[in-house]
Amino acid sequence: MVSAMSTPEEKQKKLLDLLEDDDIRELIGELKLSHPADIAEFLQLLLPHEKKLVFSVLDTKTAADVIVELDDNTRDLILKDIQTKRLSEIVDDLESDDAADIIEELPEEQAQEVLDRINDEDAEEIQKLMSYDEESAGGIMQAELVSVRQDETVASAIEEIREMSGEVEDIHSVYVTDRAERLVGVLPLRRMILASPTATVATVMEKDPISVTVDLDQEEVARIVKKYDLVVVPVVDAAGRLVGRITIDDVVDVLEEEATEDIIKLAGATDDEYAWSSSVLRSAGTRLPWLFASWIGGLVVSLIIGYYHDTLAEVVVLAAFMPVIAGMGGNVSAQSSTLVVRGIAIGSIDVKRLGVVLFRELRVGIILGVTYGILLALVTHFLYLNIVKLWLVVGLGIFASMTIASAMGTLVPIIFHKIGVDPAVASGPFISTTTDIISNFMYFTLATLIILR
Amino acid sequence: MVSAMSTPEEKQKKLLDLLEDDDIRELIGELKLSHPADIAEFLQLLLPHEKKLVFSVLDTKTAADVIVELDDNTRDLILKDIQTKRLSEIVDDLESDDAADIIEELPEEQAQEVLDRINDEDAEEIQKLMSYDEESAGGIMQAELVSVRQDETVASAIEEIREMSGEVEDIHSVYVTDRAERLVGVLPLRRMILASPTATVATVMEKDPISVTVDLDQEEVARIVKKYDLVVVPVVDAAGRLVGRITIDDVVDVLEEEATEDIIKLAGATDDEYAWSSSVLRSAGTRLPWLFASWIGGLVVSLIIGYYHDTLAEVVVLAAFMPVIAGMGGNVSAQSSTLVVRGIAIGSIDVKRLGVVLFRELRVGIILGVTYGILLALVTHFLYLNIVKLWLVVGLGIFASMTIASAMGTLVPIIFHKIGVDPAVASGPFISTTTDIISNFMYFTLATLIILR
Repeated sequence: MVSAMSTPEEKQKKLLDLLEDDDIRELIGELKLSHPADIAEFLQLLLPHEKKLVFSVLDTKTAADVIVELDDNTRDLILKDIQTKRLSEIVDDLESDDAADIIEELPEEQAQEVLDRINDEDAEEIQKLMSYDEESAGGIMQAELVSVRQDETVASAIEEIREMSGEVEDIHSVYVTDRAERLVGVLPLRRMILASPTATVATVMEKDPISVTVDLDQEEVARIVKKYDLVVVPVVDAAGRLVGRITIDDVVDVLEEEATEDIIKLAGATDDEYAWSSSVLRSAGTRLPWLFASWIGGLVVSLIIGYYHDTLAEVVVLAAFMPVIAGMGGNVSAQSSTLVVRGIAIGSIDVKRLGVVLFRELRVGIILGVTYGILLALVTHFLYLNIVKLWLVVGLGIFASMTIASAMGTLVPIIFHKIGVDPAVASGPFISTTTDIISNFMYFTLATLIILR
Repeated sequence: MVSAMSTPEEKQKKLLDLLEDDDIRELIGELKLSHPADIAEFLQLLLPHEKKLVFSVLDTKTAADVIVELDDNTRDLILKDIQTKRLSEIVDDLESDDAADIIEELPEEQAQEVLDRINDEDAEEIQKLMSYDEESAGGIMQAELVSVRQDETVASAIEEIREMSGEVEDIHSVYVTDRAERLVGVLPLRRMILASPTATVATVMEKDPISVTVDLDQEEVARIVKKYDLVVVPVVDAAGRLVGRITIDDVVDVLEEEATEDIIKLAGATDDEYAWSSSVLRSAGTRLPWLFASWIGGLVVSLIIGYYHDTLAEVVVLAAFMPVIAGMGGNVSAQSSTLVVRGIAIGSIDVKRLGVVLFRELRVGIILGVTYGILLALVTHFLYLNIVKLWLVVGLGIFASMTIASAMGTLVPIIFHKIGVDPAVASGPFISTTTDIISNFMYFTLATLIILR
């Protein structure tokens, strides 16, 4: 579907066969015909020594295009043993933002050596990019762009593109600045093509272009690019001077990163452990603290149940319904909190209208609670004939658990968001543990009140 | 930050003040200066009658730009009462893919009336787009594009852009076809600007461009655009004929939609209910079946516990540790399954190397299980002195629960993926319920074996 000749799967298969047959010459020829993104995908399938071998036969330009597409695992492996000379040539061929990302991963000494080997101007640019916060506009922007003064002509803007076309990829627009290097306009290529070559840039450009400041959080940058359907956004410093640009492919990565973070935090894991390459011990280590909170919660529940020991000893069958009551509460709170966390993240929930959202989820919780309360009471009645008090306790217990759970699942993420804590990170384990405690407490209180008195 | 003059928040505030002062003339003036995306955001804040009022004062061009940015809720509200004449003018101004989306939401009679009012060629294009599956490349592509024959000159390609520039927004490239309308190349504007006007298109174009077929799933389209860092991708039919193009902004929407779907399915809710505008009863209705599966699981657990009634009656305190043991298992399985589901979605897990992933998660589970098994055994020992058998049961119980949970959380999503079931939709509730059943079964079996015999 990508090409009429062969699917990516067939290409991978062919490359793999050549590698296994040790037909390196033929492999090199086939790699030359492949897209860097396909080569990167192929590399990721290989064993460590195969990865190094295949990467080593790539020419510098291809190696540079491939290395930016690799997953962290494969990239780290290749960077670990690479010769500084070869690495310097590759870095020299990278866009400044990708170069900065690679150099940041190197040991300090090797990083300095690479910077010394590439040309001074590039090295300076890269070092400047490395000084910005990784999660800010400065951290994801590239320094390469095409800009002209507003009093130049369209013809000289075209000349500028010609000069820069070797260095800057994906040129969508030319940026227009005043004498103080401040961004005053943007000239999309589409406009340029239709304009007279002798026209002054200032008369053809779009004025007051949307831009972001260099210290803006990357999530906010992504929101702006998405909102205004941009393909590239210029970056300015505090004085309004043009310092870089952010292209849509980097924004897509940010959006995906943020969604992944939300998903994983909701499950009470951290995205640190997301690298499947990290050691098992480290993975277990990052999960331990999250689980500790739930463990403490579980002990609190066991104390509550211990407190109601006499009730339980009298009616042992009460224990049989504990899991379904706490479990249903847990499910409802997970549903509510997930909807709210994602709603906050993509902006479909107005956090200022807390009351409306809460009231809505509470009503949903009540409907669900009544339904399952009646269902469980009925089942209990037919399983344990004639014990009216038991099915009353069980039915009311599940109703209370589900209703409170829906309120908790809605309130907690909104409150966390308001006090500046990431709702995703805090909501998952916190809510499930709290719901567990409240559900069991309500259930045994109801049991003691209704059955024992 | 978007503009040096005022932040979006200040603009919103100003618009709101004008609306509340009933200063409609001034409001219209201010709206004319606003970006359509900002107007859409402003509309979403308003009460229903205010939304209709503000939308009604927008000129046709702005109304068209705004309507595509609105959330479903606000858009449905505005479409419900809009006059067919006004709506036809707005639709006439939309890109074909957006027009098709709007018309699909209208009652059949009104849809036909709108199609009758706009020009025949556009209506035909829109109806053709409406015939494609909503989640396929055809469902998200637009018919507007600029194309030339390969034997034309660069100058005539520029002329073609000039003619189409009123109709096609965001032109990034000109597509090149042969006599049979088959796609043979792409000519990025950047190349065009640098080429001689008298050159033949075929000599300047990029050959064998990446394209997608019209029936390809939108998720797959998004994957290709992301993989190859494209800004726009051409769409061809089965015979290779150029039929449309998909721009990156629509791909970003697809990626966000898919991430949201995954997140919500993991929590056992459906994304149908994601519209906060849908009725409470409907929301409760979409959640009921998911919860039913857990409820049945809960009943199975209650039967297991009922089966071990005698064990429990003898050692009532066993009930106190049920929640912490099942809960920790549930947490571990949620962590593992989330990491695996997301890993499959973004391609960081190689599903072919099932054994490697499973073994890794299992080791993590064992480390966590041993840690919490010892911890819980210690706590139990100090809470209930001298009952060696009890802390042995509790410690082994939590170890078994966490180890099995990590295996389940890894295996189930991978197996679901292999048999063609969406791992996200199936994993959440299925895994938590199964873990609950197995944990309790193991716990009471251990208790019966160790304490009673």
